[in-house]
Amino acid sequence: MGSSIKRLAILGSTGSIGRQTLEVVSTLPDRFRVVGLAAGKNVNLLAKQISQFQPRFVHCEDGEAQAHLPSGEYELLSLEEIASHPEVDIVVIATSGKSGLSPTLAAVKAGKKVALANKESLVMAGEIITGEAKLNSAKILPIDSEHSAIWQCLEGETRPAARLILTASGGPFYHYSPVQLKKVSVEQALGHPTWQMGRKVTIDSATLMNKGLEVIEAHWLFDMPFESIGVLIHPQSIVHSMVEFIDGSVKAQLSYPDMRLPIQYALSYPERLANPQLPHLDWSRISQLTFEQPDLDTFPCLKLAIEAGKKGGTYPAVVCAADEVAVDLFLSQRIKFIDIAHLVEQALEQHQSIAHPTLEEIMMADAWAREKVLKLATGGSR
Amino acid sequence: MGSSIKRLAILGSTGSIGRQTLEVVSTLPDRFRVVGLAAGKNVNLLAKQISQFQPRFVHCEDGEAQAHLPSGEYELLSLEEIASHPEVDIVVIATSGKSGLSPTLAAVKAGKKVALANKESLVMAGEIITGEAKLNSAKILPIDSEHSAIWQCLEGETRPAARLILTASGGPFYHYSPVQLKKVSVEQALGHPTWQMGRKVTIDSATLMNKGLEVIEAHWLFDMPFESIGVLIHPQSIVHSMVEFIDGSVKAQLSYPDMRLPIQYALSYPERLANPQLPHLDWSRISQLTFEQPDLDTFPCLKLAIEAGKKGGTYPAVVCAADEVAVDLFLSQRIKFIDIAHLVEQALEQHQSIAHPTLEEIMMADAWAREKVLKLATGGSR
Repeated sequence: MGSSIKRLAILGSTGSIGRQTLEVVSTLPDRFRVVGLAAGKNVNLLAKQISQFQPRFVHCEDGEAQAHLPSGEYELLSLEEIASHPEVDIVVIATSGKSGLSPTLAAVKAGKKVALANKESLVMAGEIITGEAKLNSAKILPIDSEHSAIWQCLEGETRPAARLILTASGGPFYHYSPVQLKKVSVEQALGHPTWQMGRKVTIDSATLMNKGLEVIEAHWLFDMPFESIGVLIHPQSIVHSMVEFIDGSVKAQLSYPDMRLPIQYALSYPERLANPQLPHLDWSRISQLTFEQPDLDTFPCLKLAIEAGKKGGTYPAVVCAADEVAVDLFLSQRIKFIDIAHLVEQALEQHQSIAHPTLEEIMMADAWAREKVLKLATGGSR
Repeated sequence: MGSSIKRLAILGSTGSIGRQTLEVVSTLPDRFRVVGLAAGKNVNLLAKQISQFQPRFVHCEDGEAQAHLPSGEYELLSLEEIASHPEVDIVVIATSGKSGLSPTLAAVKAGKKVALANKESLVMAGEIITGEAKLNSAKILPIDSEHSAIWQCLEGETRPAARLILTASGGPFYHYSPVQLKKVSVEQALGHPTWQMGRKVTIDSATLMNKGLEVIEAHWLFDMPFESIGVLIHPQSIVHSMVEFIDGSVKAQLSYPDMRLPIQYALSYPERLANPQLPHLDWSRISQLTFEQPDLDTFPCLKLAIEAGKKGGTYPAVVCAADEVAVDLFLSQRIKFIDIAHLVEQALEQHQSIAHPTLEEIMMADAWAREKVLKLATGGSR
């Protein structure tokens, strides 16, 4: 095609986003080359990926497992070394939780294009990361479907948006009463109606915490005040988000819920590439798109996250950490679904925030919140 | 504001689009200055507009009525002279019917920015007008809400669209049976459910002829094959049109149905301007957006227009002319609503098209079709 091939490092290559990124890359081999792969504990899949994509740089979190990786001409590097390596053009941050923070920062400091699927980086340390990105001319390319939608709608516009509207499917329990919510099982909560995602994100979608974290992410990505970011429940997950401009015009981005589209857009930007594997909307089968206001009383996580984002400081880090622990506790059936919100709320109430925190202070808040939630949960007050 | 003031000539200033253009201009006096006004027979309103906006150039189609215009420091010029005048930056073509063709061509040949609300120009002579625009670096800025939506969605994209989807309200009779359609009155047909427009366009919306003409317009404006232009019925008139890209991503433009938005966008482009008079979507009052496939059997005008567009030559001119006469006949209660389609169909069947016609050949086809429809109608066979 005459275009240069982009060299990708995929951190978190064995997770849901990582695997879908490799799917996209496989269908467009003349556009992308995988030069770096990093994974956590799924050594078997990482080994297969190494054989298939022949990366130059590899990282495996499980040090002992490295012995089981196939031999090949690759270097074993740290996440940060891969994220900042001169031979990497785009760093895909597809790790989950706070483990994405340090490599994101390394990539941003190295002035990379950072295709970011990891919410926690921006939620916990948005001020630091966006500041470093500006300083080092790094570009953050969002992979979340909502932020990709907003980004696509903003392309070519000469002025900032007047308002962002993030859509949310509402998850599997959207019209449940508080009484019904109390009885929700792990299995039910993992059955997302429209999106196929990892377990943590799926639970966060069911509590609407996911949308709250995305509001904070949008705040940092698009430099928008929280007052200008709205959330709409849209159960069909076809409209991925909308942007309103100062003249009242609204642009929306639509597609079937399939993460490969926002992944590919981040990789191919500013171009779009034809990919026969990506589905096209069939309007003979779409008869209505519905919208409603979110119910903040029944789904308090959304409100908690937005309030934490508005207050700033180390509050967002506490939301992330408290939620991560609480979701883990729910998945291992040690707390109820509705306890996730209760635990996050209590952690926030008891937290002493630090304004404009350093990375160390963020990490301390993270550790504090994890311990606090565990204590609160095992205290067994509920 | 530091930006230069754009000088506008508004041809058709007393019509629906013309008046709304002046409304937009009135709210943004530091951005736009009206230097030219032209109207047909509504001399009273034109006189008022002259007093208010103090244009430099005026045209009044009704020569005798010119005596009633207020005195002032303006020149009386022809439409073409105003459209190509060196002191005009943007020419707003808001005349209806074929009268827009000649000034559009003059503006395009003079390399102007042409804010085009007149459908007939592009439908009748799309090849000539877009050819001259390219040759003279003129820019056609669509004012139709659908084409404005497509234009907005295409901004910033590096590649052409894969597919355009024009939305149509369906008009007041969309779920009428053929039997019900036979009994439709002029009053009913003029009661459009969502848009406030001129009489001709309102009837064309009820027959779906309007959408057919817009498909032809979109073909020329965006250089898209007819096979890649779809139509969807969307009764709420909130989504004004959509664009699908090669990666399957779709962008849509949304707003309440209010022509002042596409008018302002064409005038302010590439900027957007805040205008407190333009409404913003209130999502607490929008619960659903619905879509369905158009019924081409009950509303044959849509099919007739698209087929004429595909065949090209002088067929589209015949559709325009035949429809204009037929709508006139319906408005004066000399034919039934469903006869509009019948008459256009018969005119097309009997027409001998000329490929790549000159302007003279287009005008001859126009005259032929007008006469033919009148004859067919007064023949009284239906």
